[in-house]
Amino acid sequence: MLPDQSLAATAVHAWTLNLARAEKVFLGRSDEALREPIAPGKNRLVYLFGHLIAVHDGMLPLLGIGPRQHPELDALFLTEADRNTTALPSATELTALWRDVHGELKAGFDSFSPADWTARHTAMTDDEFAANPLRNRLAVLLNRTAHMAYHVGQCALVAPSE
Amino acid sequence: MLPDQSLAATAVHAWTLNLARAEKVFLGRSDEALREPIAPGKNRLVYLFGHLIAVHDGMLPLLGIGPRQHPELDALFLTEADRNTTALPSATELTALWRDVHGELKAGFDSFSPADWTARHTAMTDDEFAANPLRNRLAVLLNRTAHMAYHVGQCALVAPSE
Repeated sequence: MLPDQSLAATAVHAWTLNLARAEKVFLGRSDEALREPIAPGKNRLVYLFGHLIAVHDGMLPLLGIGPRQHPELDALFLTEADRNTTALPSATELTALWRDVHGELKAGFDSFSPADWTARHTAMTDDEFAANPLRNRLAVLLNRTAHMAYHVGQCALVAPSE
Repeated sequence: MLPDQSLAATAVHAWTLNLARAEKVFLGRSDEALREPIAPGKNRLVYLFGHLIAVHDGMLPLLGIGPRQHPELDALFLTEADRNTTALPSATELTALWRDVHGELKAGFDSFSPADWTARHTAMTDDEFAANPLRNRLAVLLNRTAHMAYHVGQCALVAPSE
């Protein structure tokens, strides 16, 4: 394997490992269990579940994989903090959205060459990218991997589901 | 910049960004402020401060940069959970250790070529590495970046220092 192939594959593998940890937190938990806050007065698990789906859905256009699949999630999980309402999608609905978004992402990742990962992401103009060549698609992947780990760390404060 | 150079530099940049976020949490907080737990009954900030130093110190031999600088931290911050004792290093001492370890790591990172990042880390034998070529030095860097973000996410539950 050439260095560029190895580096790109290692980064995708790190994403996949962290995704598996997030799935262990969120998938298979009941609606009731998802209503538990990560700490008193803080976000509920259900909010972080939807938040990660919304953020990862936003990676599709950002990486040039395709259009957003579920922009309707932003109002509930991105632009607003957790307002502790009950009018959120169910565990079953969120699980289906999770699988949908991550399936699309995986198909995109599988199609990228190492050079594709070093290309600019769509929120950067050509001029901006010329000035900041490290703000590439890989940077988006690594940033979102760390963002996911950040929230998984918070969810770890709640006892595991049974 | 060649793809392999861009990919390696992007990964180091992601580490640096997450390190800066951790420094915003830990550096400049008083001893008293560091005794605050991230949530009732959970790890204190001071424990996670020392924990990250110990884990990052362990990266030095793992990446072949050099010997561990502070193995004495493991007993307090790695092999044992936070036992809420007061016999821990002070904020001033931890800050000095933090700067020391991260200075060593930075010097090592700066010396690595892209191919160096794809080489095996020292916890892998040649045979293991032949079977799992993605368990390379970059995997260690990305794993530790996510680990740091995981704990920074927990620390974000505590109000920022003043």
